[in-house]
Amino acid sequence: MSQQHTSPHPGGGAEADVDVDVVVIGGGPAGEIAVARAVRGGLTAALVESRLAGGECAYYACVPSKALLRPMESVDEARRVRGVAAALTGSVDVPAVLARRDETIYHLDDSKQVAWVESLPAVMVRGFGRLRGPRLVEAVRPDGTGTELRARHAVILATGTEPALPSIPGLAEANPWTNREATTFTKAPRRLAVIGAGPVACEMAQALHFLGAEETTILVRGHRLLARTEPFAGELLLEEMRRKGIDVRFGRQPVRVDRADADGPVTLHLDDGGTLEVDELLVATGRRSAVDGLGLDTVGLEPTGPLRVGPDMRVEGVAGDWLYAVGDVNGLDLLTHMGKYQARLCGDVIAARAAGRPDDLPGLREIADGLGAPQVVFTDPQVCCVGRTEEAARAEGFDVRVVEYDLAQVTGAYLQADGYRGRAKAVVDERRRVLLGVTFVGPGVADLLHSATIAVVGEVPMERLWHAVPVFPAVSEIWLHLLEEYGL
Amino acid sequence: MSQQHTSPHPGGGAEADVDVDVVVIGGGPAGEIAVARAVRGGLTAALVESRLAGGECAYYACVPSKALLRPMESVDEARRVRGVAAALTGSVDVPAVLARRDETIYHLDDSKQVAWVESLPAVMVRGFGRLRGPRLVEAVRPDGTGTELRARHAVILATGTEPALPSIPGLAEANPWTNREATTFTKAPRRLAVIGAGPVACEMAQALHFLGAEETTILVRGHRLLARTEPFAGELLLEEMRRKGIDVRFGRQPVRVDRADADGPVTLHLDDGGTLEVDELLVATGRRSAVDGLGLDTVGLEPTGPLRVGPDMRVEGVAGDWLYAVGDVNGLDLLTHMGKYQARLCGDVIAARAAGRPDDLPGLREIADGLGAPQVVFTDPQVCCVGRTEEAARAEGFDVRVVEYDLAQVTGAYLQADGYRGRAKAVVDERRRVLLGVTFVGPGVADLLHSATIAVVGEVPMERLWHAVPVFPAVSEIWLHLLEEYGL
Repeated sequence: MSQQHTSPHPGGGAEADVDVDVVVIGGGPAGEIAVARAVRGGLTAALVESRLAGGECAYYACVPSKALLRPMESVDEARRVRGVAAALTGSVDVPAVLARRDETIYHLDDSKQVAWVESLPAVMVRGFGRLRGPRLVEAVRPDGTGTELRARHAVILATGTEPALPSIPGLAEANPWTNREATTFTKAPRRLAVIGAGPVACEMAQALHFLGAEETTILVRGHRLLARTEPFAGELLLEEMRRKGIDVRFGRQPVRVDRADADGPVTLHLDDGGTLEVDELLVATGRRSAVDGLGLDTVGLEPTGPLRVGPDMRVEGVAGDWLYAVGDVNGLDLLTHMGKYQARLCGDVIAARAAGRPDDLPGLREIADGLGAPQVVFTDPQVCCVGRTEEAARAEGFDVRVVEYDLAQVTGAYLQADGYRGRAKAVVDERRRVLLGVTFVGPGVADLLHSATIAVVGEVPMERLWHAVPVFPAVSEIWLHLLEEYGL
Repeated sequence: MSQQHTSPHPGGGAEADVDVDVVVIGGGPAGEIAVARAVRGGLTAALVESRLAGGECAYYACVPSKALLRPMESVDEARRVRGVAAALTGSVDVPAVLARRDETIYHLDDSKQVAWVESLPAVMVRGFGRLRGPRLVEAVRPDGTGTELRARHAVILATGTEPALPSIPGLAEANPWTNREATTFTKAPRRLAVIGAGPVACEMAQALHFLGAEETTILVRGHRLLARTEPFAGELLLEEMRRKGIDVRFGRQPVRVDRADADGPVTLHLDDGGTLEVDELLVATGRRSAVDGLGLDTVGLEPTGPLRVGPDMRVEGVAGDWLYAVGDVNGLDLLTHMGKYQARLCGDVIAARAAGRPDDLPGLREIADGLGAPQVVFTDPQVCCVGRTEEAARAEGFDVRVVEYDLAQVTGAYLQADGYRGRAKAVVDERRRVLLGVTFVGPGVADLLHSATIAVVGEVPMERLWHAVPVFPAVSEIWLHLLEEYGL
């Protein structure tokens, strides 16, 4: 590691506080992994982050949301096995659930993450990172002082996204919850309104409802939950939402929000003339790239996101071979695992280029985002998909054939749960006879998804999948039924 | 369908009671599927079974054992989520669990299965099926009367296996339980001894212990549980067995068994001089091919099993193209899903040959058994493996490299359960850089296995698996860790 506080930059002549091969702005999962891979590739690196190292995912998203959903899942699973429901005579200990959640997010303390970054080794720099020009970064601390970092080879932007609030009068002033408050709350509001219909809205509505939000209302602008997935996914999820007593209203939005007292109730004036009074309001209507103040203008870029990148993660429109963007900020897929994937690839590409090694090996070009990233929504039922939906595949002009099957008809599923409800769908490219996309919806199917991810990304021919025999009696047997439906 | 009671056989001249294209002896899962595929291929078929249509799997093995294990699994899962354990203040309703089990095995009534076979359509013939010569089968009823069946094209043997009792003085006279009694019991014995260390012994010991066998002792001849799997599988399972209070004794066998009264206690005299008194004794020490009385001698075969078959399921050593064997009786893999796989292939091969179509397409040759069948042992922890173990791969001369990873270090696993314990291992063929085998051991990993099955059977290169990104945070992320350990 070569943190050089006083020596002039070998290439430029200007003096920098930190002089390394690679500077990464943004210490979320993507940024951290980019640093780690660059270091693994023999480079020196620095990571700039003004907030918690580990990022949104570790403290305010994937990790705590799963910790809050898992109790609901395990209770639902137990309830669905006759004879076991009888043992569930007590109440879930919500403070214990929240204490467990707090442990998973390290009580919002990132010292372990920082220690890990430093152990790579890499330089951890606290401050708000911004570009100052080609290969030049400044980390600005709250008191206005800054650290200047010069990158010999590359700068990687990994600043992620911020919640995007819809422009509804009074909404911002009402201090609505975003994913941050919804994942770190200490007491669930008794009355909760959720605006949104995507993964965060659906997951947190169920988690909060289970943990105390007796009256939970979801306001959906459109007419579907999880609108980017196969239509049956949202339908099955909606059924279960309603069975759980969650009030889902479609085509319904607030036109004005009032909150007189910051600790008091929130009144939503709805577009049908009605009102809804709740104790808290969660807004989960989308995210926008975190590029404000990032200094994109200093390198000739428009100061808006997402940052367009090529398959090597290099930012388009910047001269020279030095600016990269990984994770949510590039808008490819707002998913932690995809950001980390891009980061691995990006760190490796930069290391290869710095060393003059080939930079176009199969591992150094992003293909997974293009094939369709895998995603799990950890609701009950879980919604798991990879690749293209039927609609997307048809829009792209593929010769599509579709097969579907009712998961409740699978022996392994009905042994798993009484009244199991679920469905699977496979989208096949008839020309190549490979899978373009697969969707599984049902309780406990999250880890089944990776079979589909390998089939889609591996482009394993249908005739070969026929020999990949699923075990009996597991939910996996859905694969046999899908292939039989296909005609094998 | 051409059930012809009076017409002479077109080829032979002898008269048969049933004259069809294909006769299948044995109505378990493999036999049923063989019939179904033959009929789907345009042939007429008859199925001969003296016991329940649906076979051992549906009534006395996979299905009821899973129904009996699922309550334990769901309680264990709930207990391992802090805050949820507090809700488990009641007792599991064992009669309700058994009632659910009874529904899954249709109260040992096979009328639905028979109706399904007849709806294919195919002829269902009750009786003990035996060969009488080439293409000639007799179904003998308990009263000694018989039905003669003539097969125009093929006879398929699918008689499965029977429990093999070790020759221990007094054992047979003590009426020990086999898988049949262990899966259909109405009250768990308070004191249970289990002889064996394979999947049935381990699964049923845990299920019975959970459902009332307070004192459960497993006597293992050797020094490992699940000796055919990677060694760590048995070790992790042993730890959990002991944590649950099951007494596992290695290198310990009974030398004599006494049971004075059929309803009374059983005394096991052990090889260390000690004795063990129990209320029931379960023997699960292996299976032998069910070929007794099958008339193998009438077609020139030795009257012992297993029946050796080629990759088209044709029995070796029989002249002509007419005798096939699928499922456990051929000894390839004693697993329902593999028997059904062989049956699909066999039915398709026979249909192709009967129609003069090509009989050597990729779908018409068995490859999955050779690659290593996938298997799940539904214990806690679940033991899931596909392909070759390290030991097997090395013995076969592959250029092997192995990677292992502690599942407890996977974020998705520790979010799933407090104190999650599990492990994964991948065996790589370094020459081709494809997976030869994968083992996952841990709670709830059964459906993760199919990802490995597709990777192994699909022979997806390691470099391609790198792009199959597992979702975060799920247990599936183990894939990323294994690939990183491999050096990607």
